[in-house]
Amino acid sequence: MTYNVAILGASGYTGAELVRIIATHPSLRVAALSADRKAGMEMSDVYPHLRHLDLPQLCTIEEIDFEQIDLAFAALPHGLSQALVRDLPKTVKVVDLGADFRLRDPKKYEFWYGAEHVAPELQKEAVYGLTEFYRDDIKNARLVAGTGCNAATVQFALRPLIAGGLIDLDDIICDLKNGLSGAGRSVKENMLFTERATNVEGYAQGGKHRHLGEFDQEFSAIAGRPVEIMFTPHLVPASRGILASCYVKGDAAAIHAALEAQYKDEPFIVVLPFGKAPGMGHVAGSNFCHIGVVGDRKTGRALVVSTLDNLNKGSSGQAVQNANLMLGLPETEGLMLSPVFP
Amino acid sequence: MTYNVAILGASGYTGAELVRIIATHPSLRVAALSADRKAGMEMSDVYPHLRHLDLPQLCTIEEIDFEQIDLAFAALPHGLSQALVRDLPKTVKVVDLGADFRLRDPKKYEFWYGAEHVAPELQKEAVYGLTEFYRDDIKNARLVAGTGCNAATVQFALRPLIAGGLIDLDDIICDLKNGLSGAGRSVKENMLFTERATNVEGYAQGGKHRHLGEFDQEFSAIAGRPVEIMFTPHLVPASRGILASCYVKGDAAAIHAALEAQYKDEPFIVVLPFGKAPGMGHVAGSNFCHIGVVGDRKTGRALVVSTLDNLNKGSSGQAVQNANLMLGLPETEGLMLSPVFP
Amino acid sequence: MTYNVAILGASGYTGAELVRIIATHPSLRVAALSADRKAGMEMSDVYPHLRHLDLPQLCTIEEIDFEQIDLAFAALPHGLSQALVRDLPKTVKVVDLGADFRLRDPKKYEFWYGAEHVAPELQKEAVYGLTEFYRDDIKNARLVAGTGCNAATVQFALRPLIAGGLIDLDDIICDLKNGLSGAGRSVKENMLFTERATNVEGYAQGGKHRHLGEFDQEFSAIAGRPVEIMFTPHLVPASRGILASCYVKGDAAAIHAALEAQYKDEPFIVVLPFGKAPGMGHVAGSNFCHIGVVGDRKTGRALVVSTLDNLNKGSSGQAVQNANLMLGLPETEGLMLSPVFP
Amino acid sequence: MTYNVAILGASGYTGAELVRIIATHPSLRVAALSADRKAGMEMSDVYPHLRHLDLPQLCTIEEIDFEQIDLAFAALPHGLSQALVRDLPKTVKVVDLGADFRLRDPKKYEFWYGAEHVAPELQKEAVYGLTEFYRDDIKNARLVAGTGCNAATVQFALRPLIAGGLIDLDDIICDLKNGLSGAGRSVKENMLFTERATNVEGYAQGGKHRHLGEFDQEFSAIAGRPVEIMFTPHLVPASRGILASCYVKGDAAAIHAALEAQYKDEPFIVVLPFGKAPGMGHVAGSNFCHIGVVGDRKTGRALVVSTLDNLNKGSSGQAVQNANLMLGLPETEGLMLSPVFP
Repeated sequence: MTYNVAILGASGYTGAELVRIIATHPSLRVAALSADRKAGMEMSDVYPHLRHLDLPQLCTIEEIDFEQIDLAFAALPHGLSQALVRDLPKTVKVVDLGADFRLRDPKKYEFWYGAEHVAPELQKEAVYGLTEFYRDDIKNARLVAGTGCNAATVQFALRPLIAGGLIDLDDIICDLKNGLSGAGRSVKENMLFTERATNVEGYAQGGKHRHLGEFDQEFSAIAGRPVEIMFTPHLVPASRGILASCYVKGDAAAIHAALEAQYKDEPFIVVLPFGKAPGMGHVAGSNFCHIGVVGDRKTGRALVVSTLDNLNKGSSGQAVQNANLMLGLPETEGLMLSPVFP
Repeated sequence: MTYNVAILGASGYTGAELVRIIATHPSLRVAALSADRKAGMEMSDVYPHLRHLDLPQLCTIEEIDFEQIDLAFAALPHGLSQALVRDLPKTVKVVDLGADFRLRDPKKYEFWYGAEHVAPELQKEAVYGLTEFYRDDIKNARLVAGTGCNAATVQFALRPLIAGGLIDLDDIICDLKNGLSGAGRSVKENMLFTERATNVEGYAQGGKHRHLGEFDQEFSAIAGRPVEIMFTPHLVPASRGILASCYVKGDAAAIHAALEAQYKDEPFIVVLPFGKAPGMGHVAGSNFCHIGVVGDRKTGRALVVSTLDNLNKGSSGQAVQNANLMLGLPETEGLMLSPVFP
Repeated sequence: MTYNVAILGASGYTGAELVRIIATHPSLRVAALSADRKAGMEMSDVYPHLRHLDLPQLCTIEEIDFEQIDLAFAALPHGLSQALVRDLPKTVKVVDLGADFRLRDPKKYEFWYGAEHVAPELQKEAVYGLTEFYRDDIKNARLVAGTGCNAATVQFALRPLIAGGLIDLDDIICDLKNGLSGAGRSVKENMLFTERATNVEGYAQGGKHRHLGEFDQEFSAIAGRPVEIMFTPHLVPASRGILASCYVKGDAAAIHAALEAQYKDEPFIVVLPFGKAPGMGHVAGSNFCHIGVVGDRKTGRALVVSTLDNLNKGSSGQAVQNANLMLGLPETEGLMLSPVFP
Repeated sequence: MTYNVAILGASGYTGAELVRIIATHPSLRVAALSADRKAGMEMSDVYPHLRHLDLPQLCTIEEIDFEQIDLAFAALPHGLSQALVRDLPKTVKVVDLGADFRLRDPKKYEFWYGAEHVAPELQKEAVYGLTEFYRDDIKNARLVAGTGCNAATVQFALRPLIAGGLIDLDDIICDLKNGLSGAGRSVKENMLFTERATNVEGYAQGGKHRHLGEFDQEFSAIAGRPVEIMFTPHLVPASRGILASCYVKGDAAAIHAALEAQYKDEPFIVVLPFGKAPGMGHVAGSNFCHIGVVGDRKTGRALVVSTLDNLNKGSSGQAVQNANLMLGLPETEGLMLSPVFP
């Protein structure tokens, strides 16, 4: 059976990545592509790399007949999904790739995003989309909130350690190296090639990055007590990928064992042999996440490194994985594309 | 039905790309991977991006039981395929990705490669692997000689123009921009990141590049008279892709029409609307080739631009496309992966 | 003696490059920096790499007391220099880095720039700023029009060949590879890191690029007859540099000899040994231009390759070289900085 | 007065950077360039970006007449300087850019470098070359041991904090992002453009990097007790630069104040306003180091970010700065070149 999907916000990078993935997905069909400001254009004019595909023209959201749509991917700027999802027919399943439904607490949403949530009842309904940890809920969900890309990367490294009581909860430092597609396709001076090509630079340091809302929510829930990590993303001259270096206090061998146990049957999470750390370029273009653990010369300290493709496993690949579950399809369907290297 | 394939020379980039493509190919199965100097290693240690796959260990060619192999891909350094292919059981079909069987004339081989050919009878048997132009011969071939990556890029642009008598045969200038994976994974000072990251530099200028042997052979055969083009590749700071800017004398509109007519039913060749030229980044990771034509302010001059991924359509993707034909499979099977952008 | 200079349009890349060069120039002093939209800001906030310098605050042009200024560099968007320069006190020498005074013929200006020139009398007065060929006029000029960066690169390769009657004037093809700083710091979607990092793509093909106005003017004047070249720039993933591959019909050895003779005493033009072609990365950050000549296997064809840093020798370095002449300083003063590699 | 210098190991990147810097240094003259395996070649063939300079031919060390040399820069692979420096005439001052004399304790040297030191008496004599902290000793030294490039970057951030008792000495985590020229010009598979262009990857994690020997020596000496930091370098796709993100426990404002006080008169160390962190691209090609401090939402935690150009301030620039002091020249002479951006 083929399911009709709509991609709302198809002109952004995560929208294009959804199209790319779905193009070879045996059970999904792109039935509608919306992009308000580019409505009327062909997708091939917006993304020439998709020129070989037979795709519907870009349209406005209003032009979509949602009665024909089984599932909608909302790849919209933060804040725009709330009212939209609220007003969709309830027959349409939704995977939201933005931040609107990640935080369950309206107050926390307001704190991190600076605006009141307009659909707080949906905040409660939405299931957090970190597939490997919310799989059963996602299967039965109508609305799934895709995670932040940084949030996914770090959680894959740390959730089993926090759950297992293996690390000091007050001393978790996560230093991230981020490919630039995380900033999307919107034009900003600091995202020009010339500004970034030979530059590495942190941003939102000191506890200002919004993905901290997700970390606080998830890690505190697992630990049963407040957990606040230090988290610093750094822009690096690459288009795709996040590599998180997580410095923790705990026994490195026990940490590695816990990660291996947690992920041994997971199709998309690869735990490297003890002592090896992954490279960001080895997951690009795929739905895989590679994790490694290295012990330090200082006893009781470990480095846990996690890497994934922000546009894929960190966003659009995760979204398709969740959609597969929501539609009763095999979880891995259409997602076994290998990383592209070099 | 599933066919067993062997990849000989799996430790190079084209070998790894073959593994990547075949991993999601429904009818091919990697049954053996050879890499003489790395025999005994796991492919995941040589190429961490393939770590999620269940692959045979790297072995020597001698260790392969070719009775179990339906088709072998030979991704070996130039010169090593000749004796090897000669000595394989005749039941094994072969796609050679190297240069050993591209030239049909032993003298031309010796001129361009500086050594006598050791299997001249196979030179005659081998079919030139430019699928879109040798399709019928490839279907019945036991040995197919994959084209040079530059040779493929330029031929897609020029063959229909030469065949159609649309351009001046004495004034063809092809200026190429080449991603660095074309040099393979062998370690050379001039291929270090630091040497190339901010550098653009031509090489083998003036008529010294070996792919000229292919151009001369093919273009002269089509034209029925000697044709020699000017051809200059330039290294650019990118890993994948070739973009060929071909300057020709002829009517731009007629040229565009001829290309559209030639490729209108081809699944992998995309001709852009008249006046548009393609970008190299829009075919990376895929088996697609994009071609565009722009007329010049000088009457009777045109620019024909062709671009493809040297590791894929220029080598390993082409090889799988040919293998599909040789095995009686649908030509596009396993090859419809979209380009990865950004 | 120290001369006070003003940099008008200091917030663009050529403005910043002027500041960088002048910072170690023994006879020039940055007395004023204008940037209308950023007036009131510190240069170090706009360009952190200049934070170590003691510079005047950015101001509006109106705030500059031109009585204190010996020479002004106008690094403004095209079109803004005309009225500005017209209204400056005649005691101020001007080097314009934009396009406003490059073309001497008002009709040609209107053709290429789509607007009537508002100061045609200055068009006549302005000296074309290709130092190595207009040195004597520049020494006595009040207004010098800096060349286009592409225009400089190609002219260094071709002027002596046209002047010497060494090449066929009807068959000149110039294929350029362009670093992205040529597009300036203005924010455009197609200049994002993600759009360009793995992409090579031509633009303004077919005779649409405005620098053709300069080529036509200069080459026709040298030849004494109309000369129109084919000229195609290509964006490559690098920040600085232009590499021009010029395909000409003529005797390669004679061409090389002519270039060597022309430039043997030039401090900034380096002609490589015959048969060698330069790399773009080997002139970055400097005022040097490297030129090489390679003969082709086709008799009577040659490739002339010229490369320079578009922000430096192609713009701000050239501007300082001209300013040195206009102020009676040694031509090379402050400009002998070596290229930065790797 | 002009001093004659020899550069031993001129074919490596730090050797070439020394030549670049000295080319515009008013008081130093390159009198000899050695490169054993490339002896007899011209520097311009090894480094085309230096083609405009009039340099001595590359020679063997034995061919140098050290009686004519005032100061030698030894830019040799680790291990090769010891015997060499021991056997030089004592009239020659030496700045060693390698690791041979950085550690004062022969046992520590043996531990980190895996071989007995052959000139332990020189280990004692050598002055550690972190100019800003060993200035007086350097002025009177005959032999100065240039610091590791990572070691310099991190020490500029942390020395004043350790000296001031401002941070917890048991919880210092330094996560570094490293440009690839730090690996030198030696050919290794993992330094190919294709391996690194879209990749970020740590190395020598867990306390294995040799620069830890310097950190341990210096930080323990300042603190008067053993100090061991966690230190992880990561390769990023850039040629030049190191950006160190140092996570410490202490009061951010006090930390910033201490850094400002320490460096307020230093010509090459720039402390950014509180709350701002520097970018690696803004120091490239220069002898400057930028430092910033950001406080965290978690009270008592701070991020101190330090960045410099590994080839310049981290190696060859530092070497010239030390040479200036050793020769009685102004410390900043020849070193005020601004960073190159973009």
